[in-house]
Amino acid sequence: MIICKVLGSVWATRKEESLNGIKLMIVQRMDVSNNTKTETFVAADFVGAGIGDRVLVATGSSARNACGQADAPIDATIVGIIDELETGADD
Amino acid sequence: MIICKVLGSVWATRKEESLNGIKLMIVQRMDVSNNTKTETFVAADFVGAGIGDRVLVATGSSARNACGQADAPIDATIVGIIDELETGADD
Amino acid sequence: MIICKVLGSVWATRKEESLNGIKLMIVQRMDVSNNTKTETFVAADFVGAGIGDRVLVATGSSARNACGQADAPIDATIVGIIDELETGADD
Amino acid sequence: MIICKVLGSVWATRKEESLNGIKLMIVQRMDVSNNTKTETFVAADFVGAGIGDRVLVATGSSARNACGQADAPIDATIVGIIDELETGADD
Amino acid sequence: MIICKVLGSVWATRKEESLNGIKLMIVQRMDVSNNTKTETFVAADFVGAGIGDRVLVATGSSARNACGQADAPIDATIVGIIDELETGADD
Repeated sequence: MIICKVLGSVWATRKEESLNGIKLMIVQRMDVSNNTKTETFVAADFVGAGIGDRVLVATGSSARNACGQADAPIDATIVGIIDELETGADD
Repeated sequence: MIICKVLGSVWATRKEESLNGIKLMIVQRMDVSNNTKTETFVAADFVGAGIGDRVLVATGSSARNACGQADAPIDATIVGIIDELETGADD
Repeated sequence: MIICKVLGSVWATRKEESLNGIKLMIVQRMDVSNNTKTETFVAADFVGAGIGDRVLVATGSSARNACGQADAPIDATIVGIIDELETGADD
Repeated sequence: MIICKVLGSVWATRKEESLNGIKLMIVQRMDVSNNTKTETFVAADFVGAGIGDRVLVATGSSARNACGQADAPIDATIVGIIDELETGADD
Repeated sequence: MIICKVLGSVWATRKEESLNGIKLMIVQRMDVSNNTKTETFVAADFVGAGIGDRVLVATGSSARNACGQADAPIDATIVGIIDELETGADD
């Protein structure tokens, strides 16, 4: 899974029927080792994420496991809202 | 899913039989955070996108869920035509 | 799918049995927006592509849909020989 | 599989139910040929890795094979803790 | 599939049970168009590759087709040892 920040949402009237009713959020990947932001993409949201939230995003075929709709054309899904990142020094 | 702009179309007479009748569009990935365009690739189109449209593209095995032809060798599909991208400030 | 140019072929005597008899071509990805060539890889060929041809390559699990051998360890397949790329101006 | 170093862990109270009880670790990819560190991401851990460990991470649909929960939205899993990397000169 | 050179092997005592007995090799991707070496990763080996060999590596779900263990968490497999790369001029 990758760590992303939610930037906004996407509206599309004309789309695959199986996407109807699914919230589509614009997210941007974050690299926690150097605090940079990288590419943006669109993820389905079933956990109720809001703009500015740091979220966990599952990609690929695994993204469909999160949505209860194995047949939707979804390749990225927000699967959690991050409370805290805990990093430590090597022992 | 990724946000792309439709650049054109591809013609191929000699091809896998299961691709017959499927519209293949050239698309270019867009990054909405800094408005750059990145790589180009080819996506199947079942929603009737036109040149210049901003579209949502599903990739990988998820792309086959959009085409009603689970057995076609398709790894990218246009699944929606974007009306609006809504981005907001962090709270 | 991605647009590639066929560079050559690969010979491997010692290989997975399920690859026997399958033609393996070296291809190089092309970006049509700025006419650059990028990474090379190897794709199975079932449409009879020749060196110098511009081809469409399907990748990932979708590549196995093109070969009638769902159990072969193939992650890239040439699925069409490109006749023409048609790009247009935005309206 | 890719070689990573474990940097820390992620806490998310609001998440997909199927992720409950699964330990989620922040890992950073390492390149052993030039000893650089590259991108960070999050992997499920079922082998008990600790911060600072060098680990093997399986990605994509293969990541779900490691967790005994084929239906969880997991796209990266720590599948081994590395004891030793052995590299040799060409003969 | 991608062309790689075998750099060495990986030892991991603590690992997923389904990986027991599987040889894990460190490989580095090669680009034959400009003879550069790029990223390193780890691939399962069922064809008996040695250090210094140029090999074909299948990735993603296709990698599991090569190992006769569809349930192992393997995302890259050496599927052939390359005898020769044959590249030609465009006609």
